[in-house]
Amino acid sequence: MKVISDRRARHYRTVSFDASKNSVLLIEQRLLPHEFKIVATATFKETARAITDMVVRGAGAIGATAAYGLAQGARAFRGSGLRNFSRHIGDVYQVLKEARPTAVDPVNAMNGILRIMKSGKTVQEKQSLTLAGAEEFANEDVKHCQAIGKFGAPLIRNGARILTHCNAGWLAFVDVGSATAPIYAAQKLGRKFHVFCDETRPRSQGATLTAWELAQQRISHQIIADNAAGHLMQRGEIDLVIVGSDRTLGRTGEIANKIGTYTKAVLAKRHKIPFYVAIPLSTIDWNLTSGFEIPIEDRHENEVLGAWGVTKNRRTYIRVANPTSHARNPGFDVTPAELITGIITPVGIFKPKLLWTNKQKLGFVG
Amino acid sequence: MKVISDRRARHYRTVSFDASKNSVLLIEQRLLPHEFKIVATATFKETARAITDMVVRGAGAIGATAAYGLAQGARAFRGSGLRNFSRHIGDVYQVLKEARPTAVDPVNAMNGILRIMKSGKTVQEKQSLTLAGAEEFANEDVKHCQAIGKFGAPLIRNGARILTHCNAGWLAFVDVGSATAPIYAAQKLGRKFHVFCDETRPRSQGATLTAWELAQQRISHQIIADNAAGHLMQRGEIDLVIVGSDRTLGRTGEIANKIGTYTKAVLAKRHKIPFYVAIPLSTIDWNLTSGFEIPIEDRHENEVLGAWGVTKNRRTYIRVANPTSHARNPGFDVTPAELITGIITPVGIFKPKLLWTNKQKLGFVG
Repeated sequence: MKVISDRRARHYRTVSFDASKNSVLLIEQRLLPHEFKIVATATFKETARAITDMVVRGAGAIGATAAYGLAQGARAFRGSGLRNFSRHIGDVYQVLKEARPTAVDPVNAMNGILRIMKSGKTVQEKQSLTLAGAEEFANEDVKHCQAIGKFGAPLIRNGARILTHCNAGWLAFVDVGSATAPIYAAQKLGRKFHVFCDETRPRSQGATLTAWELAQQRISHQIIADNAAGHLMQRGEIDLVIVGSDRTLGRTGEIANKIGTYTKAVLAKRHKIPFYVAIPLSTIDWNLTSGFEIPIEDRHENEVLGAWGVTKNRRTYIRVANPTSHARNPGFDVTPAELITGIITPVGIFKPKLLWTNKQKLGFVG
Repeated sequence: MKVISDRRARHYRTVSFDASKNSVLLIEQRLLPHEFKIVATATFKETARAITDMVVRGAGAIGATAAYGLAQGARAFRGSGLRNFSRHIGDVYQVLKEARPTAVDPVNAMNGILRIMKSGKTVQEKQSLTLAGAEEFANEDVKHCQAIGKFGAPLIRNGARILTHCNAGWLAFVDVGSATAPIYAAQKLGRKFHVFCDETRPRSQGATLTAWELAQQRISHQIIADNAAGHLMQRGEIDLVIVGSDRTLGRTGEIANKIGTYTKAVLAKRHKIPFYVAIPLSTIDWNLTSGFEIPIEDRHENEVLGAWGVTKNRRTYIRVANPTSHARNPGFDVTPAELITGIITPVGIFKPKLLWTNKQKLGFVG
């Protein structure tokens, strides 16, 4: 990967495409908040690795990355014949899909492009349709997040104290964010509120990415240890929870999201605190019939055994844990419908069990 | 504080006293597991600071530290007259009590010594009684932990998968530990089992201290992010939770323990997993009538905003969080009786609401 920029974030999308160089452009999220850089991937395999290695993460962002990655792979095809091209596309699809097995956005984004490609008659036509399809996915993602903000903003009353987990902000999408969309929209309406960011171990996306976003937007916030939310709820200091989702089961209303989300939902239920999940339509999986079917990615133990941060202006990994011990590191968990107050989508807020009833409205492609 | 040893841990108590130098000797727990050192405090104020700064932590260990600190302060008295001595003792008591407001062991340990001191007629007699009293508290703590092991071991069946939070091992006591006592006792009985250690952010005592202890004892274990226990419970991978307590309300059965304990209790209840709290009698508070009266220590935000660990063989603090964000850092939380299956004490296992009924057996001093 090539670093192509280190200027300020303000005017960048999290994911974009340089057609002249056939490169996917990504904000290098592992360096944030200490450094801002944009990297360019040279091949679709590099793009897949960027997803696996968490250069880019978050539902919509990896959806768009996979979409651009598919276009990148398609456009790099140097062979001839539709059959060879089709086989090549199948390979590209598979590599990008496996880069983050728990999420469904990459699959949905790429399936959309495959549908669009059908209208192309030649390899060249299909190649250019892949890029048009990826751009469409990215633009849709932005519009979806804005619509989530519109529907979600009324949930945030003046003085509200909101808990969020991990990062479902604009860094997790092409722009705007899902869980943060109602927050940004409420801010525009002039409401005052406070956000508690779970630090979200082991990768600390709450302490790094969400806190950074909120600081940039000048929204009142504090970081808390993942252990602290239960105590704050017990003491009546949290009014509302909003999180994102990496895969939302359209048939059951279950959601898969960053490890620890389920715990927050259980706590919210006990304390009768509304628990909302904000999603663009691309995170809906209309096929699976149980959360237990969602593959849960087991990630490297070093994430749990240590931490990344900065000392003396240098990015450093430290080993925290006992040197002779090992760790278990499931990356995601599944929250059942009964713990979810509502799912905030670009077309309205739904009870999780009513997604299926409203499937046409929610873009179900049967 | 003076470093007086860096030899292996095996034959040391976590807390002891050097009468010739009037020094409290402490294993410097902030350096573990990367380094083993014993430090000696020169004055009772240094001893109090060692509690506040977490050189020593854990219910029984800080109880013994406060007891020795009181003896240290008493023995350092250079004035004359019982009245002056008594005023001095009052000051020492207050300083040591305030070093860790959430815990009750220091108060109980020191109250015990004050009672013993009454039989002394002269300043000198009282001074030597304080040390005898402190030694008695330390020896009792060891015996109590062994008895906890005896009563708790039958809870651990062959093949059990146990979750523990923070460190209530022998480092948290003078020796043996509370939550770990049943584990060590079950090991002696030849049982095979596996322990999941919550890493226990923000200070990571699970990843550092508990994992180190278990590794030394060659007990099968894995460290997990605090976020992961809910997922493991949901998937049926945890059979039993055992934690310690910094203050146990004898009248209500509530316990105050390291932040995050409450969350684990809520999760265990949902999954019908037994949740046990192991305590020596010194953590029982017979006075308070509600957990909301327990002072919850708010600790420095830097604990949440970064992490301590080792890189290139050097102990280092790294800043993890966004540089312009702040944190909220409650150090403890309160778990209500209804979430606790049983309290393992040195005299047997009790339902939390039956502590009061059994108060005589549990050493209540009315």
